[in-house]
Amino acid sequence: LTKASLDDLAVFGGVPLFSEIKPVGQLASPEPDRFLEEVRAIFDRRELTGNGPVVKTLEARLAALHGTAYCITVANACLGLVMMLRLVTRGRTGNVIVPAFSYSGIPHVVQWAGHMPKFCDVEELRHGLDPRSVRAAIDEKTVAILAVCNVNSACEISSLASIAKEKQLPIIFDSVSALGATYGGRMLGSFGDAEVFSLHATKMLNGFEGGYVTTNDGKLAEELIALRDGPRVNASLNEIHAALALLSLDMLDEIVERNRKRYEAYASVCARIAGLDLVPYVHAERERYTYQMAFAHVHEPWPLTREATIRVLRAENAFAMPYYSPPLHRSSHCPPGMIVPPMPVSESLAQRFMYLPVGEHTTIADVEALGELLEWISGRGDELRVRLRDSA
Amino acid sequence: LTKASLDDLAVFGGVPLFSEIKPVGQLASPEPDRFLEEVRAIFDRRELTGNGPVVKTLEARLAALHGTAYCITVANACLGLVMMLRLVTRGRTGNVIVPAFSYSGIPHVVQWAGHMPKFCDVEELRHGLDPRSVRAAIDEKTVAILAVCNVNSACEISSLASIAKEKQLPIIFDSVSALGATYGGRMLGSFGDAEVFSLHATKMLNGFEGGYVTTNDGKLAEELIALRDGPRVNASLNEIHAALALLSLDMLDEIVERNRKRYEAYASVCARIAGLDLVPYVHAERERYTYQMAFAHVHEPWPLTREATIRVLRAENAFAMPYYSPPLHRSSHCPPGMIVPPMPVSESLAQRFMYLPVGEHTTIADVEALGELLEWISGRGDELRVRLRDSA
Repeated sequence: LTKASLDDLAVFGGVPLFSEIKPVGQLASPEPDRFLEEVRAIFDRRELTGNGPVVKTLEARLAALHGTAYCITVANACLGLVMMLRLVTRGRTGNVIVPAFSYSGIPHVVQWAGHMPKFCDVEELRHGLDPRSVRAAIDEKTVAILAVCNVNSACEISSLASIAKEKQLPIIFDSVSALGATYGGRMLGSFGDAEVFSLHATKMLNGFEGGYVTTNDGKLAEELIALRDGPRVNASLNEIHAALALLSLDMLDEIVERNRKRYEAYASVCARIAGLDLVPYVHAERERYTYQMAFAHVHEPWPLTREATIRVLRAENAFAMPYYSPPLHRSSHCPPGMIVPPMPVSESLAQRFMYLPVGEHTTIADVEALGELLEWISGRGDELRVRLRDSA
Repeated sequence: LTKASLDDLAVFGGVPLFSEIKPVGQLASPEPDRFLEEVRAIFDRRELTGNGPVVKTLEARLAALHGTAYCITVANACLGLVMMLRLVTRGRTGNVIVPAFSYSGIPHVVQWAGHMPKFCDVEELRHGLDPRSVRAAIDEKTVAILAVCNVNSACEISSLASIAKEKQLPIIFDSVSALGATYGGRMLGSFGDAEVFSLHATKMLNGFEGGYVTTNDGKLAEELIALRDGPRVNASLNEIHAALALLSLDMLDEIVERNRKRYEAYASVCARIAGLDLVPYVHAERERYTYQMAFAHVHEPWPLTREATIRVLRAENAFAMPYYSPPLHRSSHCPPGMIVPPMPVSESLAQRFMYLPVGEHTTIADVEALGELLEWISGRGDELRVRLRDSA
């Protein structure tokens, strides 16, 4: 480690540990030459948009990946969610049950679909909708459930799907973060009425932008295609994005392998540091994951608060971030004037976690360098806390 | 002409006049090599999405083209319209005044924005909202005016903007079809609260997909950027599309020149044929246009109905289409149950016009061949009508 005294920390003016930003995000891309070949072929065919052969191939391969009868690509995952929430509610408007501990787009997609979000608490292990909270929240205004599968675990799909069935409500899974993971050993994609995934550059499969919906419901698939391709909002994926996503799909296994090694490097780093616990992938012994993210629970005896830790790391160009914080019902993303009861688990989880740099721009050596820095910091807690307070 | 008898018409099994479909749509694209160079540079910079340098350059050049203070690129023109209609209505929901004679997306974007369309009749010359009809339709439920500028003419912008000002209503111009045209000698882009344009491959500027909003209102521009880039529906344009659109922008003058020659070829064809009148670009002596479309008024003594003419031409691979037909208030795009008064001008115009093949896939020789075919048909009207009826 190149740090000898606290003055060497970048937060106090020292040289950053990394000369470039180490981001949170997959950011895998194929060899430019391979992609450019595909683009040239698309130009030669003069089929730039709209259900060309590359889009169709991508849809077939994604359906195979997820084991579903249908895969419908869309311009982005948010639009996929908005369109699906419109379709499954069949003209009724009302409340859509969503987790309070999730990403900031959730209440917005619900409102774009013409509904209002109804926040429910999550459970400790999987960080997804708590089935008890969902059951208590369902009333005559409820029109759908939008459950989110997170990166380190699917949500309680079985229980949630049972409740949806019992209450005759549609249920959509936002599986954007969980692309490539399994639940009960079965690849995500075929649960509920439909699942929605992303092809954004920061995600597992990179199409620059884009997303897709998987379902086994032929009628719903047909309706989504009509809505996507119809004279409405143009929500289709184009050939160029599909070409990139296909190449990315070819690389999926290698990417997962690199992710796993990076995750394991973080695991051995965190094992050496008291108060920094790497959050496990739930039931990793029997489920598959893509290991795209690494986030840690920050707690005593680690000497700094989560926010102070992030401040120190960002100065070093390690782009740490709070994970799902604040919870949605306490954030600017909650519709104005909405009264929401306390959500103890969401509120507690939202204070705990910190994303660590991952993805193709972060090497194992980077993780080890970060680990050395964190160990070094953990031995200088009292002194560092005072300096940080003075410099705030 | 290769047709000797009616049996030689493709509609009766003859060889089609064109071996490939001649479409309605601009479909200009740059040299693949130039585009691929740009894509490689984007890969090298690892900036695939989100406000990269190419998007910023494109926005600056489009603002210069339109003479506006701001240009904000978006994922597509429909999303641009939806976002603008949400912003300018400031949380109020109600009716948005739209033309009954327009494209099918209009009532859908209004509803995606949370409002209901209120159809108004159009005027004969410009085919845009009739200011008298708009004035009569405004009531306490009206929240905005969405006016459309068509390919052959801007709408009555001055009168409509005056009404909007008087009634303190926001007014947005959908200028997708009119990109590159002027109104009162001034380039479209800076009228009303904002104007919306498309970068779809079939339009004047080709970015595969994409669109943009122009405005001189700094506050509105800022709000749109926040909505586009915020944690909501991902509505931003990416670097690859921007690169293509920039190259397309470089070619704009040449494309317009080719369009004008094609349009003039159609004008001389139609001048020879009774009952097929090429629809003029309004006040072409003092306004600028891009001449991207050619559509004809089909009337007696032309021997066939518009629908029969389209049937015959499509069989020949000349992809003729009805223009804005049926009018929106008489179509499946009218919200169910809505009661709409008669709109005599819209209803009459909707029966009149037929799009002719245009764009980069249609040569002057193609237009002349089509002209010969049309002349040949016009001399065989009685016989052809009978054959078509029998074969229907």
